[in-house]
Amino acid sequence: MRAFTTSDFHQMERRYRAAFFNSIGGFKSVSLVGTTDAQGHANLAIFNSVVHLGADPPLLGMVVRPHIVERHTLENILQTGAYTLNHVSEAIFRQAHQTSAKYPREVSEFEACGLTPKYLDFCPAPFVQESPLQIGLAFVEKIDIRHNGTHLVIGRITGVVAPEDCICPDGFVDIERAGSITCSGLDAYYRAQRLARLSYAKPHISLTEIL
Amino acid sequence: MRAFTTSDFHQMERRYRAAFFNSIGGFKSVSLVGTTDAQGHANLAIFNSVVHLGADPPLLGMVVRPHIVERHTLENILQTGAYTLNHVSEAIFRQAHQTSAKYPREVSEFEACGLTPKYLDFCPAPFVQESPLQIGLAFVEKIDIRHNGTHLVIGRITGVVAPEDCICPDGFVDIERAGSITCSGLDAYYRAQRLARLSYAKPHISLTEIL
Repeated sequence: MRAFTTSDFHQMERRYRAAFFNSIGGFKSVSLVGTTDAQGHANLAIFNSVVHLGADPPLLGMVVRPHIVERHTLENILQTGAYTLNHVSEAIFRQAHQTSAKYPREVSEFEACGLTPKYLDFCPAPFVQESPLQIGLAFVEKIDIRHNGTHLVIGRITGVVAPEDCICPDGFVDIERAGSITCSGLDAYYRAQRLARLSYAKPHISLTEIL
Repeated sequence: MRAFTTSDFHQMERRYRAAFFNSIGGFKSVSLVGTTDAQGHANLAIFNSVVHLGADPPLLGMVVRPHIVERHTLENILQTGAYTLNHVSEAIFRQAHQTSAKYPREVSEFEACGLTPKYLDFCPAPFVQESPLQIGLAFVEKIDIRHNGTHLVIGRITGVVAPEDCICPDGFVDIERAGSITCSGLDAYYRAQRLARLSYAKPHISLTEIL
């Protein structure tokens, strides 16, 4: 094992530092965020910073960086009040990664990257037809994080589209079966393989597997 | 594919709803958070809500629920200003899950769940000896999320311990090689298997794999 402390961090070159700190937080979700601008032009961007905030009301958070590629996404969310989150599968992770290229505003990443926009009545923003699990959201709040200029964008889930056979009787959605993948760092993508679902933990009671 | 909208959400039973919304955000990191109270009693709790906030300064966020099991963790962070995040491996995910049982304050989850506290000089909180990647943090800020009473706890990374052979020349940390796992929902654990690392995306340039 090797230890890195603050003096090591200061000596890291900028891109090395970004790769290092983006990978140590653990595996992350990877989603395509669909939006439109006020004129209706579709935009699509990859995000790996989604976090569950609560089930009742159903809220998801997403960290958005300042003045970076995701700026179109944030501006569109603030203008239209709507966005979609679309899981990424093994079949589309290369197209998903390609959406992070700096396309000019007038270019739709759907078209540039070979993905298909789809519209559903519970959310005015575009979904990704090829995505295995699709979520529509209504913008709730943007919280500014003063320490580094990032923002936490909070949305309320207005609808979910998922494969029927991935919804378990207890409400668990089997996203491995749906084909969703995970990521690490800025550029690494992984398939997931279940080890186990474990029973609700109580003191002095042995855990069992949920099958 | 099946669509669920707001009227469906309202009809979901409480535990079904929690399982459903906790699993649709995508795969998540899974970490053990180590703290001590003001008297030095060690505490350990599992979290799956860590989010990367920035590399310079190196910041991680973590969503903490109000009045739930994690309350000891939040109180300890606010009292001592320090905490650790420890990745979970296939060897310890059952012990890690068991830390979510509601143990009384005087019980150390390290002892109750069979994990070993370890102290390092860059952070006063306890690390998990068995963890494949260990991070020390200094508390920076607690942001209250009004919509549901949760909190975003922000910490600055003061040190990282990782296996030497998992640090790639470009700064990427190979957490699959380290043995870190991922999770979904409230109780499902997964190993990750790399599909590819992809090159930095630019318009009109084909992606290549980083080997």
